[in-house]
Amino acid sequence: MTVTTTSTSLLADDDAVTAAPSRHRVLTGDRPTGPLHLGHYFGTLRNRVRLQRLGVDTFLVVADYQVITDRAAPGEIAANVHEVVLDNLAAGIDPRRTTIFAHSAVPALNQLMLPFLALTTVAELRRNPTVKDEAASAGVSSLSGLLLTYPVHQAADILFCHGTLVPVGQDQLPHVEQTRQIARRFNDSHGGEQPVFTEPQALLSPAPRLLGIDGTKMSKSRGNAIDLRASEDDTARLVRRAVTDDERVITYDPQTRPGVSSLVLTAALATGQTPESVAEGIGPQGSSALKALVTEAVNEELRPVRARRAEYAAEPGLVERVLLAGAERANAEADRTLQRVHTALGMKY
Amino acid sequence: MTVTTTSTSLLADDDAVTAAPSRHRVLTGDRPTGPLHLGHYFGTLRNRVRLQRLGVDTFLVVADYQVITDRAAPGEIAANVHEVVLDNLAAGIDPRRTTIFAHSAVPALNQLMLPFLALTTVAELRRNPTVKDEAASAGVSSLSGLLLTYPVHQAADILFCHGTLVPVGQDQLPHVEQTRQIARRFNDSHGGEQPVFTEPQALLSPAPRLLGIDGTKMSKSRGNAIDLRASEDDTARLVRRAVTDDERVITYDPQTRPGVSSLVLTAALATGQTPESVAEGIGPQGSSALKALVTEAVNEELRPVRARRAEYAAEPGLVERVLLAGAERANAEADRTLQRVHTALGMKY
Repeated sequence: MTVTTTSTSLLADDDAVTAAPSRHRVLTGDRPTGPLHLGHYFGTLRNRVRLQRLGVDTFLVVADYQVITDRAAPGEIAANVHEVVLDNLAAGIDPRRTTIFAHSAVPALNQLMLPFLALTTVAELRRNPTVKDEAASAGVSSLSGLLLTYPVHQAADILFCHGTLVPVGQDQLPHVEQTRQIARRFNDSHGGEQPVFTEPQALLSPAPRLLGIDGTKMSKSRGNAIDLRASEDDTARLVRRAVTDDERVITYDPQTRPGVSSLVLTAALATGQTPESVAEGIGPQGSSALKALVTEAVNEELRPVRARRAEYAAEPGLVERVLLAGAERANAEADRTLQRVHTALGMKY
Repeated sequence: MTVTTTSTSLLADDDAVTAAPSRHRVLTGDRPTGPLHLGHYFGTLRNRVRLQRLGVDTFLVVADYQVITDRAAPGEIAANVHEVVLDNLAAGIDPRRTTIFAHSAVPALNQLMLPFLALTTVAELRRNPTVKDEAASAGVSSLSGLLLTYPVHQAADILFCHGTLVPVGQDQLPHVEQTRQIARRFNDSHGGEQPVFTEPQALLSPAPRLLGIDGTKMSKSRGNAIDLRASEDDTARLVRRAVTDDERVITYDPQTRPGVSSLVLTAALATGQTPESVAEGIGPQGSSALKALVTEAVNEELRPVRARRAEYAAEPGLVERVLLAGAERANAEADRTLQRVHTALGMKY
């Protein structure tokens, strides 16, 4: 891969990526807190697979070091890592084309935290919206050092493999901006003739957020999600329980009718229509017709995904082999980057 | 090495160490900001060599990752690392018995930062006196992430090699306490039957602090230090310039006569007498007699050190070979510890 990008804007242009996929490398990933759900599928996984099919070289980190708590049950992390890898493979991620690895297996990536921490102020970290939110919900005094430095760890993820594109939602733009700042500062302070790091660009996710069946943000921890691995019957059952409202005629209005609109959006994403035309198609048939459509569309869209998932899950040692091969490639990349960092810092003894 | 220590007090008892040196492992080190000086020699190096001679297994980190700034001149870090290693070897550190390595060369050690950051709150880090001091002098808003997390990095230094003893001054006790807390929390949360980490103890430095020739704290950055590598003539010249006072009769009174008392202390440390008897011996002969004594005593004490230093400095590739061999041993140790950490965290895929 030759990366020739120098100074770029924060937002990448999807058309430009499509036109020249080989000029890009994607860094993406998941926190292994449980199996992935419909929100991940439409928001992230489908786009990941699309980029991979375009020929964009992709690194996919399973962020196991970002889920360490003092409460995890024994075996929980390993089980979650297993599910997340299976979900990605099932969605169409090909481990021969995409490098899938766990944080914990790539020491040189994690080591980049140290030079990057030197280029970041505590004040900047505290201004990061994710850190701010977590500080607010955990209480400022119990904010962990891991959480405060999370944006720096993410910078290490992106910069270790010279990622040029980071697919994100709007709310994660500040993370990408922080990474760009670290790259810029490193190049300015220790760059020499040739900059060590490329400033990555954010590739905004094409799909808006889905709500869970209780009408709040779909999230593994809230138990309101339809998992990719759910059976067709479970999917039907969960969709039937989804919160709607008392108006008979179905319309698409996310502001005033969040529950109904999220169902409309789900059917739209699964069938490739616009939400407006889905709503029009159901109209006065009401929410049970809408739910039947959602169930059918989701089960149809996920049928090949679930079939692959069952097949992969039955293959002994598959996930382990994928992670091992990915770690080998990621380590080679990280070791090379760390060598360049040490040369730039004059750490050659 | 078998470490059987379980719960211990913060302070180690020097006599107990002397009685059973093989039950201990020392973690010690230097920030490579320049050549070491008399303050390091009497405060740290002599004690290091004493412990090594007793047979205490020692790991010595050259903390190159703790001196990254955006201002370092090219080659500065490498030159400083070189000097620090030479100073240690000259003082009597034997690289066959003591593992000398640079932070940057041991990724698995640095990787321990991540699980340890998860066990530390930002509030705790801010209460650390060194962090507080630096925040006060740098301005809170420009405190770097590296500095805030410095106590966690130090915990990784100590715990990666299961250090049981950390020679420190009184002001560094909070660092050792922070490390003990991290060890305890890790063992409590992820310990299983056998705790992964030993809680280290602080071994208080036997020598009080020396002042620089300007009467303030002796420090590389203040240019007021007598370097180990200084020539005998330079030593004489620097001692002659040292701040004293107008009282003719020499006494030892660090509170009211800091300059004179630091010279008295230097002579005492170099000759193995008490400061009181040095002061009594000079008495009415005044400060020029005191300075002559200091010069002679220091040059006498350092003569073999300086001779070894010149010899080692002339040996091409010596420092590089020492660091390479040390890094190999430190990496083996760090990789083993990281494996145990991953087993305890259930990160086996």
